This record gives sequence, structure tokens and C-alpha cells, in this order.
Amino acid sequence: MSETSNKSRRAFLRGAAAAGAGTVAAAATARAQAAPDPLITEVQPWASGLGEGVDATPYGLPIRFESDVIRRNVPWLTADPISSINFTPIHALDGTITPQGCAFERHHSGAIELAKQDFRLMINGLVDQPLVFSYEDLERFPRINRVFFCECAANTGMEWAGAQLNGAQFTHGMIHNMEYSGVPLRTLLEEAGVKTEGKWVYVEGADASSNGRSIPLEKALDDVLVAFKANGEALRMEHGYPVRLVVPGWEGNMWVKWLRRIEVVEGPVESREETSKYTDTLADGVSRKWTWVMDAKSIVTSPSPQAPITHGPGPLVITGLAWSGRGAVSKVDVSKDGGKTWETARLANPGEPMALTRFYLDTTWDGSEMLLQSRAMDETGYVQPTKAMLREVRGENSVYHNNCIQTWWVKETGEAENVEVS
Amino acid sequence: MSETSNKSRRAFLRGAAAAGAGTVAAAATARAQAAPDPLITEVQPWASGLGEGVDATPYGLPIRFESDVIRRNVPWLTADPISSINFTPIHALDGTITPQGCAFERHHSGAIELAKQDFRLMINGLVDQPLVFSYEDLERFPRINRVFFCECAANTGMEWAGAQLNGAQFTHGMIHNMEYSGVPLRTLLEEAGVKTEGKWVYVEGADASSNGRSIPLEKALDDVLVAFKANGEALRMEHGYPVRLVVPGWEGNMWVKWLRRIEVVEGPVESREETSKYTDTLADGVSRKWTWVMDAKSIVTSPSPQAPITHGPGPLVITGLAWSGRGAVSKVDVSKDGGKTWETARLANPGEPMALTRFYLDTTWDGSEMLLQSRAMDETGYVQPTKAMLREVRGENSVYHNNCIQTWWVKETGEAENVEVS
Repeated sequence: MSETSNKSRRAFLRGAAAAGAGTVAAAATARAQAAPDPLITEVQPWASGLGEGVDATPYGLPIRFESDVIRRNVPWLTADPISSINFTPIHALDGTITPQGCAFERHHSGAIELAKQDFRLMINGLVDQPLVFSYEDLERFPRINRVFFCECAANTGMEWAGAQLNGAQFTHGMIHNMEYSGVPLRTLLEEAGVKTEGKWVYVEGADASSNGRSIPLEKALDDVLVAFKANGEALRMEHGYPVRLVVPGWEGNMWVKWLRRIEVVEGPVESREETSKYTDTLADGVSRKWTWVMDAKSIVTSPSPQAPITHGPGPLVITGLAWSGRGAVSKVDVSKDGGKTWETARLANPGEPMALTRFYLDTTWDGSEMLLQSRAMDETGYVQPTKAMLREVRGENSVYHNNCIQTWWVKETGEAENVEVS
Repeated sequence: MSETSNKSRRAFLRGAAAAGAGTVAAAATARAQAAPDPLITEVQPWASGLGEGVDATPYGLPIRFESDVIRRNVPWLTADPISSINFTPIHALDGTITPQGCAFERHHSGAIELAKQDFRLMINGLVDQPLVFSYEDLERFPRINRVFFCECAANTGMEWAGAQLNGAQFTHGMIHNMEYSGVPLRTLLEEAGVKTEGKWVYVEGADASSNGRSIPLEKALDDVLVAFKANGEALRMEHGYPVRLVVPGWEGNMWVKWLRRIEVVEGPVESREETSKYTDTLADGVSRKWTWVMDAKSIVTSPSPQAPITHGPGPLVITGLAWSGRGAVSKVDVSKDGGKTWETARLANPGEPMALTRFYLDTTWDGSEMLLQSRAMDETGYVQPTKAMLREVRGENSVYHNNCIQTWWVKETGEAENVEVS
């Protein structure tokens, strides 16, 4: 538990309001006393006419004013959008839940349309009894509900060489955080009966890529879910409808979508997705494999290049996200001077294991430029490293598992830019 | 904390699987050994072709197979959809979060389109300094994040006289549960400085109805939020974009949308919405007012009339939602015989104050008919009453605050019907 979250929230808020909100109140006072504001003094059309009825939107979408808060892809990143990624607009979100509609996607051969009645999940290999489950079968097993983040191993991967992409959506948006409902994989494996020789499972999806991955049995029996709902409703097509694997804290590529088969095996399969891809090439050309866990990481989402400061000096809310694949986030620090000095941020809620944590630094901006950084610590005591520390160990050939501290250069104008500090 | 949630979940799951899952495994075994299933033995089109690219859906919607999981209104309920309600498809959801797109709406003069730059929030009345806040001003105050349910006072209101509507969506769907990000109203009131004579606030929206409601200052200073995000993203138009009030545990009508003005007053305003409406008429014609809190309540969402059992006897997951406006749900019981005997359900997670709690009863269905009920208890010790108990105190003239135990008659066919038991 962080020091901040141990304080009374009310005391904190009162303190913050007393200390820092003066300028906002002054601005609001000025507005209340200023020459008549037609938005206050005149009857507006929305207050004198009728709006939309409840039959207008059986399933709603964001209001048109928010049409820029969408997933975006980076066309030059891959040869084809069929085997590519798009990014969650984390710069524009608050809280921790990611709506499915703007949660990042990664496909290896495109998002497929698979109906529930066409769904089959086979468990075979080193089991006492091979089983084939229909969707309806899965619904008959005890379920659990839990919020977990899913982060692509390549998140922030383009930043290894230097500051590349100008926006938190692009540097850190290969992540989402949803409430999953599903059956523990353990339950299904116990139904089939794992033989003593079975030490791993090999999991594959129903899409053309099949995206096969090996998972140690220990993890498979621990907290892995065979999930069919996210944020209360059915998984969207692009998130694996009707059923995907949820592998808490581990890289997103292992969260196999359109789940088709789980084979219990003696050793890892060493598939394409865990040898040629999703391994970490070191400076000497040797690749590390089985780097599954997403280490502690954080990012300031606002202010940031896509979310500049649009007001003058005075009260400023700095906010961002922190997470760890090894447990709960215990503390987040924020620096305004590129890591020379740090202030402890307030966690919106106590960290939850392997789920996003929202942090805030309620501060006063003096109008001068800042080198904004955030640094997460998790319950194991691990502290998010600088890029220099990471490069020292890993070199610059890596693509995956870049969890380094990010820097935004916030200028006097309030605009922000992706930079690197030494 | 309930007895159930004190048990090890894993032990529970193992026990449930051992006790009840035999039939599922048998069915799955049969499927594995049956005559070749082309879904397993043949290469399917979705496994041999390419799917959709990541540029296809900048903001996604549910897959077409889920097109019946939508908000629905009941045309005969009100004269016009402009001043009506639609219902959350709770029968088809799992977990606790309600996506904004299918979260129930209630308008009094339609959902209005109000841009951020046109938003003003005035705080006036018995304050040291009247203030007018722009949207940007609000973003400069410290925020909090919390999940809360919002239930219309009229939820289940049509059921006072008897079993009327055939489906959990229609009997209990005037509820949603979202993660809100916003500024405590306390912070803004402290900025304005509440005078000693100020004992209530009167809150109104920018729509033509203005939907004015009086709230005691004690509540306004406690946990009320001026919220601008729900489930991470901007409020949808129909949920009050850009800013709505969140009044935890209290009836939805007080959660004023398109927030415009908060006046600090000496006593309640006694507006239309708290006199002619949203009061509870007793048997003798006298109306109770200030019945703000939504008492403990629960509903079995599956099986239910819109979610029948589609398989034979054997393992069955009974699930539903429970909530209380007075704190956390501590226990949910489920009855299969119309309230004669009760079993303690498993809570998916420990109850959170004034938020939805998902419960499960992992059971074995013998194929005979059931009179399914659920009964919630909250941390105050309050137990959800029967309809008979409620009628004894309240008569049958009420519309609002019907939190009685609901009964589904599940037939041998697996179909379910809304019934009343004496």
C-alpha cells in the first residue's frame, strides 16, 4: 500500500483544493462576474426544445464531438492492416476500464467472424480423456470475474532506438483493461485429467494464423481464464468472439483469440510466435525466450503530445496509468524535471493485481517547461527502469518488453513532445 | 463478508467441478468420440482465409450475432419516447460493468446534444462567492474514480400489482453500473463557500425538463460526484455529456444529466420531480417523500424468461446481480422452490459499496420445474423483502422503490416465466 493511499482521501482533497485550486476559482469568479455570458443569460436551444427519444439508439456510440477518440493504426508499421495493430486512445481516457470499442487490436491474419454454434474447443494431448466443448458446455462451468490488463509485448517497442512516436496512444496504447467473465482453464484441464508427463499446454486460435503459443502448466493451472465476456458483454469480434484466453500479467500475444484447441504437451512447442517472434534479441545477437511477464510500467497520459495543457499557469491535474504483470502497483512517482526530483502520485484506488491503476498528481503549474516522467513500483519492490538502464542490459536490438520510463517535454505553450533525456 | 467469499475460491471450484460437472464432461467426451464433426475435422473458411484488418473499425460495435443484446423500450409505458425509458439487457450480460452503449436511458425531454464549449456549471445561492465553471475548469480539480450503480426509482415499478413483464431486462433493467471519473461536489462547494444557512442544494440540468432535484447538503458534501467520464471514456450523449451528477446509492432521477446549476438553498425546493413524481403513495393515499436511497435488491438474470435453459439436466450456472444503496452486498441467497428453502450463492467478488455485485449458484438441475428467487442482504443487516411484506407496508399504489424478491417459474422445458408466489 502506498503512503498516499493510506491518507484519508477527503483530507487530501481538502488540502489540494485549499493549496492549488485558487486560480480555477478565480477564473470561475471572473466568469460569474464578467459581462453577460449568453450561455448563462439566454435560453439556449437545447433548453427550449426536445432531444432524442429512448428509441433512437438501441446500442449507442460516442457523441460526435468525441469522434477523434478512436483506435488508430500506424500505416508504416506493418506491410498490411490484416497483420497489424491499432492503439487505444489512452491520452483521452480516464479511470481504468477500457471500453471494448476503443481497446487496441492486434491480429496476425485479420479478425475472423466465428459464430457461437461454430465454436468448438478441443482439449487433447497428454490427458486421460480428450474433450471437445461447445460454447454452451463452457457456460455450464463455474465462472469467475476479474479485471486484467492485456498489453502487447511490443508496446513501446518502437521507442528502443529513441523518441519515435508523438503521443501516448502510439507509444503506450497497445494496452487495454477489461472485466472478464470466464471459466478457469484449470477447471477444464481437470475435467480432461492431465497426465503426469504433461508439463505445458499449447494453445491455438481458429484464425488462419492460429497464433500458437506454449504456456507452462503451472501458469495454466493458476489464473488463466477461458473468457467469453469483457466489460459485461460478449467479446467483440476483434477481441476474439466468442471465446479468448486471458493470461493475467503475461504478454498479449498469449491471450489467444477465437480459441480452438489446448493440447497438453511434455515440453514447449517452440512455435513461430515464440521463437522467430516474441523473443528479445540482445546486443550480441542472442535472443532471450520465455520472457512472458509484462514488468511494471507507467505512462503520463495527460498532459501529453495529444493532450496538451490548454490553460495558463495554476492548478493542473497530471494523470496516467501504471501496471505490473507481477502483482499490484504499490506506488507511482512523477517527475517534472526529467527524473532529478520525484513526487509521489495519488493512486485513484489501491492497486489491483495485474490490472491498470490510475494515478494523479494534483499540482500547480508555474507555466515553465517540464520534463514529465512517471515511475511505477509494484508489490514485489521492483521499480520501473530508465531507458538507459534497460539499454545497458538489453542493447538496442529488442522489439519487445520495453517498460522504460517515458519523458514528455511540456513546453511553455502547454504543448508536449516525445523526447529522450540522458 | 459472506461465508462463501471467505472460502477459498479454488477449493470451491474444485468441489463444484467434482460434484456437478460430470454431465458436461460426458457431453464433451461424447462429442470428442462421436462421428466426425466437420467443425473439427475439416478446415473451415475462417481458418483458411484472412479476416478484417485493424483499420476496419476505429470505434467498434458488437458482432452482428449479438444484435439482440440491446436496450429496449416498452412503447405502452409512456406517451412519447422523448419522455420515457429503455432497459439494459441484463439477462444477456455477465460480470458487473455495464457498457455505456447498452446502459438504460431515462429522459424527461429527450437526450440533448451539448458541446463542451457550450457547457457552464453555475454554483449560486447561499454561497460566499457565486461561481461559473467551464468544462476545462472542472478538469483542473482533483478527481476520483469509483464504480457505482445507477437505478431508476421506478425499476420494477410495474410489478407492484402483479407479474407484468416477461424478462429481467424489463422488470429490473432500469439499472447500470459504471466506473465514473469526476470531481467531488464537495470540492466545488468548498470553492464557493457554503453559508451557514445553506442546508440543501438544488440541482438542475440543461435540458428543457431541467429535472430539478433537492439534495440535503450532508449528502452533497459526502460522496456526490460531478462526473465527466464513465467506463474510462466521455459520457455518452444519452448519459449526460459532457457532465452529469453521480449520487451514489440514491435514485437515478437525482443523477442530473447535462448538469447546469447547483443552488445552495435553506430548504428543499419541493419541485415537480420530488412531489408529483418520485414520491411513494401509500394505501391510504398519503405520499411519502424523500425516499432517496435504493434499498438492497437482487435479480436472477439467467435463467430467466429471455435467457431460458437450453440444455438438459445436469450442471447449471444460476447467476444474477445484487446491490444496495446503503453499502456493500454481504450475502445473496437463491431459492429454487419459491422461497421455502435457500442456498447461499457465491459472490464473484466481495461486495463494493453502492455497486453491482455478481452472484453465482453453481448447481445441478434435475430437470424438474423451479420457482427461482434471489434475496440480497447488505452490510447493514437489511434483508431484501418479499412482495407480500412490501405490500403490507406500502399498499399497491406505489410506483417507485419496489425492491421485492422476484420469482421466475422455470419449466421442465427450460423456459421461464414471470410469476408471483404467495
